[in-house]
Amino acid sequence: MEEKTATNNFKLRVEKFLERQEFMKHIGFDLSVIEEGKTEGWLDIESIHKQQKGLVHGGVTATIADIVAGFAAYTTVPMDCHVVTAEIKVSYFKAGMGDKLHAIGYVIKRGRKLNFCEAEIWAVVGEKRNLIAKATTTMAVITPQDINHKMNA
Amino acid sequence: MEEKTATNNFKLRVEKFLERQEFMKHIGFDLSVIEEGKTEGWLDIESIHKQQKGLVHGGVTATIADIVAGFAAYTTVPMDCHVVTAEIKVSYFKAGMGDKLHAIGYVIKRGRKLNFCEAEIWAVVGEKRNLIAKATTTMAVITPQDINHKMNA
Amino acid sequence: MEEKTATNNFKLRVEKFLERQEFMKHIGFDLSVIEEGKTEGWLDIESIHKQQKGLVHGGVTATIADIVAGFAAYTTVPMDCHVVTAEIKVSYFKAGMGDKLHAIGYVIKRGRKLNFCEAEIWAVVGEKRNLIAKATTTMAVITPQDINHKMNA
Amino acid sequence: MEEKTATNNFKLRVEKFLERQEFMKHIGFDLSVIEEGKTEGWLDIESIHKQQKGLVHGGVTATIADIVAGFAAYTTVPMDCHVVTAEIKVSYFKAGMGDKLHAIGYVIKRGRKLNFCEAEIWAVVGEKRNLIAKATTTMAVITPQDINHKMNA
Repeated sequence: MEEKTATNNFKLRVEKFLERQEFMKHIGFDLSVIEEGKTEGWLDIESIHKQQKGLVHGGVTATIADIVAGFAAYTTVPMDCHVVTAEIKVSYFKAGMGDKLHAIGYVIKRGRKLNFCEAEIWAVVGEKRNLIAKATTTMAVITPQDINHKMNA
Repeated sequence: MEEKTATNNFKLRVEKFLERQEFMKHIGFDLSVIEEGKTEGWLDIESIHKQQKGLVHGGVTATIADIVAGFAAYTTVPMDCHVVTAEIKVSYFKAGMGDKLHAIGYVIKRGRKLNFCEAEIWAVVGEKRNLIAKATTTMAVITPQDINHKMNA
Repeated sequence: MEEKTATNNFKLRVEKFLERQEFMKHIGFDLSVIEEGKTEGWLDIESIHKQQKGLVHGGVTATIADIVAGFAAYTTVPMDCHVVTAEIKVSYFKAGMGDKLHAIGYVIKRGRKLNFCEAEIWAVVGEKRNLIAKATTTMAVITPQDINHKMNA
Repeated sequence: MEEKTATNNFKLRVEKFLERQEFMKHIGFDLSVIEEGKTEGWLDIESIHKQQKGLVHGGVTATIADIVAGFAAYTTVPMDCHVVTAEIKVSYFKAGMGDKLHAIGYVIKRGRKLNFCEAEIWAVVGEKRNLIAKATTTMAVITPQDINHKMNA
């Protein structure tokens, strides 16, 4: 009878958020795997994602790295908290080209106030996969007290 | 009579590139100031730029930081070279909200092989301006030899 | 009569900490300017600071960047709080050589939980000054509650 | 008879460099594992490594991360080349305390001009190991041509 386990809960919470993720929809990214401390998603590479050389824009890569890392952190915080990206660093290993991008984000160190996360971005060309970028981020936990504090500030 | 000064040249080169900057167009960013070692642009904040909380997505901020820093570096390299982002770090100081974003990118240390750049992202709300993020990047110079090398590799 | 103004207080607090900064002493760094949100210090370049090429080791540069940025943040937090470095990125613009290093750290965005800081490292050669590196950091504020929480965890 | 295989060569080259690594010696770090694309080392935690709270200074952690990542990159470049750190980011997961630090550096993406590396810093307390920090770096390859270029500049 009790179907809202902790696991269901974070999935439901993330899914509720995704409905209002306008920028994510605008670039066509689909977050399809939501586990505790880890999320994954896919993007079909189209002309809208490209820069002047016909390669995937670094901003697309940075955006989906931020999304998978941020939601990975979000699955680990209490119900009344959320997370914001304090900083992200993205290293670009290879030119982004191919059929799809596959983004994997995970928490490498959980914390009450900060979650350190990483993200890998793979380009998929037919059967082949290339690691084109890797990101490291600091995700700050926002509590209800923080929000009250801001409102009274 | 002689109108193609060095200054005109890098403007023309950047403008030629901008026509094919599909992702930049897709997010509605306008790169309007192109000087040697510095570029600036504007973005009208719309619903497509937002995440689940109604704030500008960090990926938008990272993308326009990458664009202004990258083109700032591009204005400094020889005619037959271009630049790629080796890595970018973005620190998020404040929530992105308001009417417009104003992005400023500049080269802080020029080099033959690497250009170190910074970018500032300001949110404009009426008469007020808030520095919402700052980025630091390493931009690698790609020479014609590099391209030949890749093709033969 | 009342001489312990807020200004005096943060100077006293930093100076008390400096006495126990063993690693800072071990590398011979002198933190001599302590203002609200900004600190500065100097290091005489000696053979102990060098790597195999006879240049200042990047670790020296990173260490003094961390010190000036961290103490800059520390001057801004309440009496019962302290700060820890969540992350630091150092970009190396030039080889470190000369007579002295001059490190300047400052808070670029103050916050209740996070302080974003920057540091500049200058090499001084006679009358000349070269910006050899720049760092950006996220400094996390540690409250007495955080310490209690850890102890009970 | 032929004992200077490629493997021997990079070990010999690194070992030759280590003799002149004054800062590494000054902090007491021992680089003991040198493989192609990977190096490891150890440091006995002593009072000289500490900051005001009695924990390992972040500068020690950053320094040994830079060393293991840099030498990992160095093992991969041609005989007449060397490497310099363009930038390093260090994320601090836990306070540094215990008996020893164990640093592991490896190349995550090799390149002709840039090597992207990572480093892990583990604190060892008796039988226990804690990942206290992780670093990501961009290591630039310096060729003989680069050195000539600088000398004529």
